[in-house]
Amino acid sequence: MTADLSPTDRSTVRRGRERAQTDRQALYDVLSEALVCHLSVVVDGLPFVIPTGFGHDEGTLYVHGSTGSQSLRGGEGLPVCVAVTLVDGIVYARSVFHHSMNYRAAVIHGVARPLEGDEKTHGLKVITEHLAPGSWEHCRPPTRKELAQTAVLALDLHEASVKLRRGGPKDEDDDLTYPSWAGVLPVRQVFGDPEPCDLLADEVSVPSHVRARPPGS
Amino acid sequence: MTADLSPTDRSTVRRGRERAQTDRQALYDVLSEALVCHLSVVVDGLPFVIPTGFGHDEGTLYVHGSTGSQSLRGGEGLPVCVAVTLVDGIVYARSVFHHSMNYRAAVIHGVARPLEGDEKTHGLKVITEHLAPGSWEHCRPPTRKELAQTAVLALDLHEASVKLRRGGPKDEDDDLTYPSWAGVLPVRQVFGDPEPCDLLADEVSVPSHVRARPPGS
Repeated sequence: MTADLSPTDRSTVRRGRERAQTDRQALYDVLSEALVCHLSVVVDGLPFVIPTGFGHDEGTLYVHGSTGSQSLRGGEGLPVCVAVTLVDGIVYARSVFHHSMNYRAAVIHGVARPLEGDEKTHGLKVITEHLAPGSWEHCRPPTRKELAQTAVLALDLHEASVKLRRGGPKDEDDDLTYPSWAGVLPVRQVFGDPEPCDLLADEVSVPSHVRARPPGS
Repeated sequence: MTADLSPTDRSTVRRGRERAQTDRQALYDVLSEALVCHLSVVVDGLPFVIPTGFGHDEGTLYVHGSTGSQSLRGGEGLPVCVAVTLVDGIVYARSVFHHSMNYRAAVIHGVARPLEGDEKTHGLKVITEHLAPGSWEHCRPPTRKELAQTAVLALDLHEASVKLRRGGPKDEDDDLTYPSWAGVLPVRQVFGDPEPCDLLADEVSVPSHVRARPPGS
């Protein structure tokens, strides 16, 4: 099921409206493929941004943090803005001015709330399965003490915008005969070969959820 | 020449001090390899963060934007925080709790100033050469009108921290015999084959600065 996003004034894309996407599935696609988000908060009136792990399910973004992190303190109702960005290519134009990047980017605004109890365990499961699909079942589950040392924030995926650029350069007509190369250099994130821990027993082989993890998952 | 970074209270890494780097070269290495930064500002008392292009030279970060972007308005003295993040691997531990990510991340605090005149042209050159090394000389230079349509912010690389994690999982001793796989799945960003613009004349071959662009440049 997909539904249009409901952008408010601040989440309405002002620049490059043709690059804005309002389909909820476009938001989920960006969130599913990215490995980190950038979480910004206001601290003492000044901006602060850090990269962190995240995950999402229907309608909710879960953001991971330590309970010791200054950016995640604030109790109930911490205003946040979260960006999730995928770079897809470098756009080489005939002019310097029209150089660009192909990308997909989600920006989410809202008030994050720290989770406790079963909700926190669920949020941590979603974040873990995003980072390392299959690990929640495969590995030793978190203890009560470990859960207490972990902070999980939840943010409604209501006020969000998705913007993207794709395709080749858009040069001025007058530049089309300029003697420079023009096109796109694709960029993608790939996984290398799994590197087992030095302390791992020889008989433990790489499980399929790691060995066969597809790119962009 | 390298010099220690000079972290202030807010740029001092509180969590995981063993992951903090204070060497200036570590900062430049992260900045050189990443393709985008995340720029955060405070708008009406609330956090706002967007991905954007950037570049750097000795001591200065240059950030690209359109003069129409709400986040880049603010005239002289716009407090910003910029994060530049590279993901190097997924760390699979024997326990869910010790799952992690290998990464290198720079966070820079400061007051950004909009550039004009020759400084702006220099900043745009640095940003262009970061995005597409070789393009500044190869392509049609910006006109006065195009320069007027571009905003370039400069930020001193003084108040910055670099944090990284590398290596394998750090499991609890009691977990070392837990029957799950543990290790690192490397992540890296790669370039694909250049895709020429449909409108490009057949005789224009891919130049070496595009064809032979090394990963992480």
